[in-house]
Amino acid sequence: MKRHAKARPRAICLVSGGMDSAVALAEAYHAGFETFALSFDYGQRHAAELAAAARVARSLGVEEHRVVKIDLAEIGGSALTDRMKVPKDRRHAAIGKDIPATYVPARNTVFLAVALGWAEVLGARDLFLGVNALDYSGYPDCRPQFLAAFERLASVATAAGVERGAAFHVRAPLLQMTKADIVRRGIALGVDFAATHTCYDPVKRRGRVLACGRCDACKLRRKGFREAGIPDPLPYAARRKKA
Amino acid sequence: MKRHAKARPRAICLVSGGMDSAVALAEAYHAGFETFALSFDYGQRHAAELAAAARVARSLGVEEHRVVKIDLAEIGGSALTDRMKVPKDRRHAAIGKDIPATYVPARNTVFLAVALGWAEVLGARDLFLGVNALDYSGYPDCRPQFLAAFERLASVATAAGVERGAAFHVRAPLLQMTKADIVRRGIALGVDFAATHTCYDPVKRRGRVLACGRCDACKLRRKGFREAGIPDPLPYAARRKKA
Repeated sequence: MKRHAKARPRAICLVSGGMDSAVALAEAYHAGFETFALSFDYGQRHAAELAAAARVARSLGVEEHRVVKIDLAEIGGSALTDRMKVPKDRRHAAIGKDIPATYVPARNTVFLAVALGWAEVLGARDLFLGVNALDYSGYPDCRPQFLAAFERLASVATAAGVERGAAFHVRAPLLQMTKADIVRRGIALGVDFAATHTCYDPVKRRGRVLACGRCDACKLRRKGFREAGIPDPLPYAARRKKA
Repeated sequence: MKRHAKARPRAICLVSGGMDSAVALAEAYHAGFETFALSFDYGQRHAAELAAAARVARSLGVEEHRVVKIDLAEIGGSALTDRMKVPKDRRHAAIGKDIPATYVPARNTVFLAVALGWAEVLGARDLFLGVNALDYSGYPDCRPQFLAAFERLASVATAAGVERGAAFHVRAPLLQMTKADIVRRGIALGVDFAATHTCYDPVKRRGRVLACGRCDACKLRRKGFREAGIPDPLPYAARRKKA
């Protein structure tokens, strides 16, 4: 039986396949929205992310999941889409100090813009994304000022806003959370973290794709699970070093 | 000899293949910018637009022309990307009264977002687009309020804005111009209007692609040339009726 029988407001949720957007999606569902998951095939290095996004969307009861292809590699500038090197084995203290090599210029602006277009088509007014406290130390387009500026833009960028005075909300329910908070909150909401994918540079071993365990993303994820006192269900290629 | 020997500031110019963006691009060059043309393959019905964009970029001396593929048809909602019918033979008075069927939700938001990403990579701070007085009667994302909101967003969305206080400028030099003004200005700037493509619904006839002459875009273009007293170099499938 569906929890909400009818007339739930709709929300577009950006779903990357990672753990943060999975928990944000679960928050949207929990808050009573009919959820529409949006993912991007943007020339990121690994199809593993999109496979995870589909698993996450399915496991969290979305109404629809769409994948929009956009070739951001065409405009270059990032280790995630270019052939730049993904940093490995950085100390935790060094992560999040400056804008990382994995920053894709204007990525969230592009993603939210497409989400806004789909929201217009569906009559949705709420856009969920999984940005959190850790992100906004590093990525400009994860900060509260950015989210607020996008809300203001949305109201003048759309037919709904201009003709019917609709207000759009950019919702980042994890904004104040650490990775450990996100792990705990996800468990409380029933998120299957085994379905998620985090690694920037996965390794193929005996036909399986394993997280490297050494890139910034893997290190932050493992630290989050460790601090939450919950075992990470993912297999890793590299064993965890003592902190 | 190049007009500007060195250190020209860079500008990203959205180039659709239509006459407006061609004139906006010419304005950017005329204002002293090193121009980088950006076009989108977004599931619009006609490859003719992109062929025209490449001709326009080449003829107006751009440094580089890139085409970013993005599948906006995936999120639906427009006669330009869906299988909805393009309106024909509407009276001029009816054009621009309400949001047209050819409105692609959040299109300019998406296009400017990608332009912003490329601007970050290139160190450009100026984004040119060809929106004009006619557009903003119909399309929300062509209005001055929208352009101003995007400028504010850009300063908080980018590493350049956040770390180095860079201000971005969204420049719409045709904003106050009618189609007739645009024709005259384009001629003054040396724009080859024969290179441009305008029609929403071109017709194939004896191996040639002809503008239909009957969709809103064709009607507005022809009216502009007529009012400017300049012959339109494009061949049309339908003869012009008396106004």
